[in-house]
Amino acid sequence: MSEQKRPKKSENFSEWYTQVLIDSKFIDYSPVSGAIVFRASSYFAWDMIRSATDVLFKKAGIQDFYFPLFIPEHLLEKEKEHVEGFSPEVAWVTHAGNTKLEERLAIRPTSETIMYEIVSKWIRSWRDLPLRMNQWNNVVRWEFRHPTPFLRSREFLWNEGHTIFATREEAAAERDEVLGIYNKILKEYLALPGITGRKTDSEKFAGAEASYSIEHVMPDGWMIQGPDFHSDGQKFSKAFEISFLDKEGKKAYAYQNTFAISTRELGVMVAIHGDDRGLIIPPKLAVIQAVIIPIYNDSNKEAVLAYAKEAKDSLGESIRSYIDDNDAYSPGWKFSEWELRGVPVRIEIGEKELKSKSATVTRRDTLEKKQLGIDELGKGVAALLSEIHENMYLKAKKFLDSHVHDADTYEMLKDIIKNSKGAARAPWCGDSECESRIKEETGAKITNMPFDAQGKEKGKKCVYCGKDAKYTANFARSY
Amino acid sequence: MSEQKRPKKSENFSEWYTQVLIDSKFIDYSPVSGAIVFRASSYFAWDMIRSATDVLFKKAGIQDFYFPLFIPEHLLEKEKEHVEGFSPEVAWVTHAGNTKLEERLAIRPTSETIMYEIVSKWIRSWRDLPLRMNQWNNVVRWEFRHPTPFLRSREFLWNEGHTIFATREEAAAERDEVLGIYNKILKEYLALPGITGRKTDSEKFAGAEASYSIEHVMPDGWMIQGPDFHSDGQKFSKAFEISFLDKEGKKAYAYQNTFAISTRELGVMVAIHGDDRGLIIPPKLAVIQAVIIPIYNDSNKEAVLAYAKEAKDSLGESIRSYIDDNDAYSPGWKFSEWELRGVPVRIEIGEKELKSKSATVTRRDTLEKKQLGIDELGKGVAALLSEIHENMYLKAKKFLDSHVHDADTYEMLKDIIKNSKGAARAPWCGDSECESRIKEETGAKITNMPFDAQGKEKGKKCVYCGKDAKYTANFARSY
Repeated sequence: MSEQKRPKKSENFSEWYTQVLIDSKFIDYSPVSGAIVFRASSYFAWDMIRSATDVLFKKAGIQDFYFPLFIPEHLLEKEKEHVEGFSPEVAWVTHAGNTKLEERLAIRPTSETIMYEIVSKWIRSWRDLPLRMNQWNNVVRWEFRHPTPFLRSREFLWNEGHTIFATREEAAAERDEVLGIYNKILKEYLALPGITGRKTDSEKFAGAEASYSIEHVMPDGWMIQGPDFHSDGQKFSKAFEISFLDKEGKKAYAYQNTFAISTRELGVMVAIHGDDRGLIIPPKLAVIQAVIIPIYNDSNKEAVLAYAKEAKDSLGESIRSYIDDNDAYSPGWKFSEWELRGVPVRIEIGEKELKSKSATVTRRDTLEKKQLGIDELGKGVAALLSEIHENMYLKAKKFLDSHVHDADTYEMLKDIIKNSKGAARAPWCGDSECESRIKEETGAKITNMPFDAQGKEKGKKCVYCGKDAKYTANFARSY
Repeated sequence: MSEQKRPKKSENFSEWYTQVLIDSKFIDYSPVSGAIVFRASSYFAWDMIRSATDVLFKKAGIQDFYFPLFIPEHLLEKEKEHVEGFSPEVAWVTHAGNTKLEERLAIRPTSETIMYEIVSKWIRSWRDLPLRMNQWNNVVRWEFRHPTPFLRSREFLWNEGHTIFATREEAAAERDEVLGIYNKILKEYLALPGITGRKTDSEKFAGAEASYSIEHVMPDGWMIQGPDFHSDGQKFSKAFEISFLDKEGKKAYAYQNTFAISTRELGVMVAIHGDDRGLIIPPKLAVIQAVIIPIYNDSNKEAVLAYAKEAKDSLGESIRSYIDDNDAYSPGWKFSEWELRGVPVRIEIGEKELKSKSATVTRRDTLEKKQLGIDELGKGVAALLSEIHENMYLKAKKFLDSHVHDADTYEMLKDIIKNSKGAARAPWCGDSECESRIKEETGAKITNMPFDAQGKEKGKKCVYCGKDAKYTANFARSY
């Protein structure tokens, strides 16, 4: 519970991470290994991410649907690469009540197969396209590696976008639109930067022609994949017969994309922003944005509590605030508890504040204090919440930038990986042989080939084989 | 597809119901029997119900959580009545990938057991209460009766509220608050009235002390249970050891409630409001509230389409509108199609409208037409949408009221049930023997004992046994 018992983030990141999630009441474990409980604060944060993303999807013309949780076994097997990617970790329903089912049902690990089987019947003509679908749901991937809350969960929540176009060009144009939406949500809601780029062929999604990702660097220097986007070309449309009559009246197969952001981002958010005192929740995602802590004794209790209520009123409806007037705990205990929970702003109200018609306001990110007049509390705290968000983003950006190192030689790459300094940005020939050798020898894979770094490899040699480089790739150990 | 091929609602309600759901593209079937696809229009309606209800929950102090999809078998068995009620229809996960699980996992049919096992550890003192939790999720009940979209689905979406209080009084006070929220949502969003009352002991929820429900009368005169609320007393708190130290420092067991509204309501909405032309969607739940249909020929196409765009602009952002400029279909075909889909308002734009700077506006509920000036279109259509909602509710209320008949004799009750006239409201002694005999002999069960009818039984005799009546109960055939 207390700060003392938790390891420091800088000393034992993974222990700090799981302990802070539990201590802060952000999540709890469940009797099902790998499935966690989202408590009020984590579910609120996810719900804000979901609704903000959904608004942008709708503006872009992407609509929400809901397809079944279950996928009959024969459907899951329809696209070969896809089933190979997922079947080892599928949870199977075999019985209903006491009755054995005729065919096993997979709990969706992702919904391509169940969706496309059905949707193929909806599409007859080019006029039925584009069909841009999304769903917000729960999926199950029974990984046998050690589960980690949010980062590797057996059940998680996500969006799965599934869009269908008449032409390759239209499908391709969606990539930057969707990755733009994800980057906007990461920056404006989670205060997180990321590195956007293309995955290599060996790291792409099971069934995709090309995959794209936004990658984060975690505090331990390892990278983790965030939101992603997949160009599926005609792989699924041919397997599921998603065809249509084009403008010339000829049969054609559709082009498809898929994309996702998941509750994994909550883990990245906690990992990157938190400190030894606990969570630091970005203001827009905090279920309580400002906690008011009244400090009183027997003689002024009534007056201070009334003044705390006045402060809450002054904050107004648009700031989510809460008065912690629990008599069982001391103000000092409460300070620690709300810091642990990551509430962006603490407001102390005592005799001094009451007399001067002010409030003592402390921001969680820097722990800086200042006095605000009671009448300016709403405006002042709103401005402070914006400042906190901005500061959190800039700090995270600085961390990210300082953990991407150019490596023009294999020695440099090995040093970066060995000492967990983040990503080694290196010229690469494009050969999967070099990619896999580097992985074997260093433990680092290519997380992606950042869009904004392409071209830097010009005139350079592949860090492994010495042939002409074709790409600039980020190599890192990865979750 | 066409109106001609569908049976009339008044002649074959159940055929009309399933066919109109498919024809209108509101839903589709899936390869998993009993699991349907929510297409854009039905998911949108559910999402509006979800978010409007969630706002009211949050105002009341109920917060959202998310608990795992899976329940280990030993947990499901912890409360005896509960497991007896649900285990016959549980979907069981037995394998993950190729590995047999050590213990079978139930897909949640409802989450009491997984939640209470975990939550019991969160509660130590009376200060930790009340704990008012909710979750929006999917549940699975593998009923072996014939599935019907929304009304009896094997997977459905719902809210499940789970609240925990220190005293029986506090728990009891929540009942009217939650039923009030559900009735408000039904009236203001779905344009549906209902009959609120208590269930009998033989009809209550598996594990509850008392259950309450809002019941609807369907077009075929059968009733269907809508949202419900259960007072669980200390049944679960004792089974799951949800105890705390009270203000005197003594160990006490908590009092609990649960409550739900589900996607079944979408089925009730379709059934009650629809007509032989198709769906009629209440305006607040319609993904398209106003469809603009331009009517043009080769000579005025450009001008009419530009004018249609002008009409859309005049409607403004707050009305969800769509211009159907698909050249492949005639205006007449489009009129039928959008009527089938239940869009509340149709706006025709042609040469005549262009010249007079007006629009021809047709409301879906009554098919009445009127002319509106282009500049007053936003205001005029907004007012019309309110009128449509109001009219839909009043019509549904009139239908409900005319399908509840007082039956002071058993002959009257039998006639009402036999001729599918709706509910027979009759005096009842409170004896479950009479209740079950009536069910055996007529097929009608007690749907609930309406709050607003209690007292009417005074001085009357039980319709079955002739003893003094204690309650006024609604008897009906029920889904």
